Amino acid sequence: MEQRITLITLGVADLARARAFYEALGWRGQEVEDTVFFQAGGLGFVLWGRDELAVDCGLEPPGPAAEPGRFGGIALAHNVRSDAEADALLAAAEEAGGTVTRPAAVNSIGFYSGAFVDPDGHPWEVAHNPGFALAADGSVTIPDFGTGQLP
Amino acid sequence: MEQRITLITLGVADLARARAFYEALGWRGQEVEDTVFFQAGGLGFVLWGRDELAVDCGLEPPGPAAEPGRFGGIALAHNVRSDAEADALLAAAEEAGGTVTRPAAVNSIGFYSGAFVDPDGHPWEVAHNPGFALAADGSVTIPDFGTGQLP
Repeated sequence: MEQRITLITLGVADLARARAFYEALGWRGQEVEDTVFFQAGGLGFVLWGRDELAVDCGLEPPGPAAEPGRFGGIALAHNVRSDAEADALLAAAEEAGGTVTRPAAVNSIGFYSGAFVDPDGHPWEVAHNPGFALAADGSVTIPDFGTGQLP
Repeated sequence: MEQRITLITLGVADLARARAFYEALGWRGQEVEDTVFFQAGGLGFVLWGRDELAVDCGLEPPGPAAEPGRFGGIALAHNVRSDAEADALLAAAEEAGGTVTRPAAVNSIGFYSGAFVDPDGHPWEVAHNPGFALAADGSVTIPDFGTGQLP
């Protein structure tokens, strides 16, 4: 696992409100299928529904019955360059004391990903997504989705 | 507010266990005053006590009586280049619909910082910390604290 982070995703209750907040602070993002992507330096910053994000991490969506600390509302992602690398990282995470909460598989978007939580329950997605270019230094470039929403 | 993130801090229940997990994945960090700092690309990745992190964000520490979702266990930081910039960002956050949870002041370490939460309660620290060099592109370089723990 290279020492870097690819995406930070905030689970939000109201996507339009959340986007409006960051746009009001000067950020400019692109909304694609109920997700807002921002380029943040070499990092992608993402807003997505809190329930969907929890499920994508292999966790129960939060709700009135959710235990405190069960899902913190933020997930980190570490993108890799092959399916084999994703498998190896999930295995390494389990071996290091984490828990695989979603075994790696081709997801509905068509790329290979899985998820684990660290010992404190912080979720990480592990993905091989050729659509999100990784530079040699590991920084990610969010693609232009052609929405016309970029400055 | 520039479109970037400076630090990601994970609140953890057991610092040694959390550090051992990331070290087992190949990360190398430096522990200083019950905090572990990792360089993650142009980003700092930090492990710190969950209760201390909550208090530093101006939030109640989580506990048996904590409401679900009150504190998600992760904070983001946006470092700036002057005290005035920190004040301006906190004001902008409030104006955009966030809530200042800790007004800006010189903290116990000696630098100027404050905190706000976004509309979903995700905490951001806003800091002017000359000890953490910001590059022209906004990337941060975690200083070498001289612990001898770097590779």
